[in-house]
Amino acid sequence: MIETPYLLFLGDAPDQLAAKVAQGIKDWRPENAVGQFRMDGCQADVRLPDMTLEEAKAAGARTLVIGVANRGGKISAAWREVLVAALEAGFDLASGLHNLLRDVPELAAAAQANGRSLHDVRVPSVEYPIANGVRRRGKRVLAVGTDCSVGKMYTGLALDAAMKARGMKSSFRATGQTGILITGEGIPLDAVIADFMAGSVEWLTPDNDEDHWDIIEGQGSLFHVSYSGVTMALIHGGQPDALILSHEPTRKTMRGLPDYALPSLEALRETALTMARVANPACEVIGVSVNTQALGEDEALAYLAQVERETGLPTVDPFRQGAARLADALERL
Amino acid sequence: MIETPYLLFLGDAPDQLAAKVAQGIKDWRPENAVGQFRMDGCQADVRLPDMTLEEAKAAGARTLVIGVANRGGKISAAWREVLVAALEAGFDLASGLHNLLRDVPELAAAAQANGRSLHDVRVPSVEYPIANGVRRRGKRVLAVGTDCSVGKMYTGLALDAAMKARGMKSSFRATGQTGILITGEGIPLDAVIADFMAGSVEWLTPDNDEDHWDIIEGQGSLFHVSYSGVTMALIHGGQPDALILSHEPTRKTMRGLPDYALPSLEALRETALTMARVANPACEVIGVSVNTQALGEDEALAYLAQVERETGLPTVDPFRQGAARLADALERL
Repeated sequence: MIETPYLLFLGDAPDQLAAKVAQGIKDWRPENAVGQFRMDGCQADVRLPDMTLEEAKAAGARTLVIGVANRGGKISAAWREVLVAALEAGFDLASGLHNLLRDVPELAAAAQANGRSLHDVRVPSVEYPIANGVRRRGKRVLAVGTDCSVGKMYTGLALDAAMKARGMKSSFRATGQTGILITGEGIPLDAVIADFMAGSVEWLTPDNDEDHWDIIEGQGSLFHVSYSGVTMALIHGGQPDALILSHEPTRKTMRGLPDYALPSLEALRETALTMARVANPACEVIGVSVNTQALGEDEALAYLAQVERETGLPTVDPFRQGAARLADALERL
Repeated sequence: MIETPYLLFLGDAPDQLAAKVAQGIKDWRPENAVGQFRMDGCQADVRLPDMTLEEAKAAGARTLVIGVANRGGKISAAWREVLVAALEAGFDLASGLHNLLRDVPELAAAAQANGRSLHDVRVPSVEYPIANGVRRRGKRVLAVGTDCSVGKMYTGLALDAAMKARGMKSSFRATGQTGILITGEGIPLDAVIADFMAGSVEWLTPDNDEDHWDIIEGQGSLFHVSYSGVTMALIHGGQPDALILSHEPTRKTMRGLPDYALPSLEALRETALTMARVANPACEVIGVSVNTQALGEDEALAYLAQVERETGLPTVDPFRQGAARLADALERL
């Protein structure tokens, strides 16, 4: 667990997109961030107060989070200077970069000397159990996609916000690097050893109140041959009570697999539900979330209406419309 | 790749069952073993010549294989003495034990001093790629089970033997520790990191002659919530042309999951085929292999006939009957 609140490190981000992680924290957990730290030449701005390390410390920040994706995964010399200063000022560091903080000798030494923690969220820090399949109390919902990167994390975070807004009990359970940095905890599922994948999802979503919902962040797709095993472990380890189908309507082929067409929503519905009912016979598909970013407003609304007619399921773009109708569907369940 | 032939180390095995790995090598790759090495009190015997290290060396053995499962995973002091002597005599060591050879300081030192290799087949020694889903030349067959431990490895090895006996081109592709030790190579799939599972299976079964069959060792079950992700990666990474359904008819609940019933062969057939056709639209289920070990001969034959009637697929117990009818089915494909 990463200590909050954060100071968001934007470094020398070349553009706004490079600061995606920081933007996610600002959008979804604004209470977790007191400010942003930008270096000379930084082209990103997540509209938080610019702060020095000292100002952030005085504002209560505990952890400096690398909120920026760097080129080539390297931690540059310019960054290193700031990161060492942050450790010396009493901050922990957290990063989802491929290159690990702990592998940079200056950072390892400064963390040790100052008694601070380096959180490399790309690698598991827990010895997860093998899944035991025992039914757990409380409710769980999982988004499954026709493909990777179709908006499953966004759907989960939007659903969490919609549920909290109406006083439902919910927890967004992160299973990827960005989600972990946004919420401060979770499992880096794609880095877990095969035998322990489903067990790590059980560990992430333990017994809870009967009326509490874990919103499990989806990963991969049952139909994406590179990552389908990860998705399967989410479905069986998560034993969801509810599934949401996620889709991006302009995608022509599976991400990174030019020879593979996307499955239909109906094929996804049938296969995902069959597999989910192995772990939870009561599981239902409760709605569809569509990422209509690439469509104009009229086209998007027409597409959503069409999917809703065809599937008979509440169909929303959580970015355009919020996830209230998905929360409704969970309330009805 | 482990250098053959082997001397099989049976240690102080308390009974025959403890020497399962050695027995597997003797049964399936007798040409890989020149003899067995037994310590005082050893209660196992795989009916190979008993040899000293010197005798085995003279007979051409290159690797001492730990062919025995020990209690508690520890490498005892009595074993260590023999293993160090083997390294000094010029043998490599290979082991599938949970406790790694490389973690025993005396063995690591002796291997280094004598320029020998320690093969801990439980941990990957290769950086596998992420699966790319590109179609590969050659044919592949995979056994999928209604549960774990229903005879998928045995089915694969028996099929390999039956195909070679009739001059078909085939390779048994090991995906677990025992299979790796039997054949000298393979992938320890359950120890691979989630993102690389399917890629490791692609790596294991590369382009080959059009009339060559890779027989991919199955793992887990799509219906076993602890390990289904591993099975999924085999199906999508292996892109099989043919599936064999494997079953154990007296199993009441899923192995290690007392609350879970086994799926029907029909449910397995439908789900496995649906998922396999994502990667290979031409995939067919070609037969059923049943482990009838717990049934009497008459009962077993009656059960096999019944399954064959119900599924319309060639149904055999490869232990009782050999796998010739499965090889027939592949030849017809």
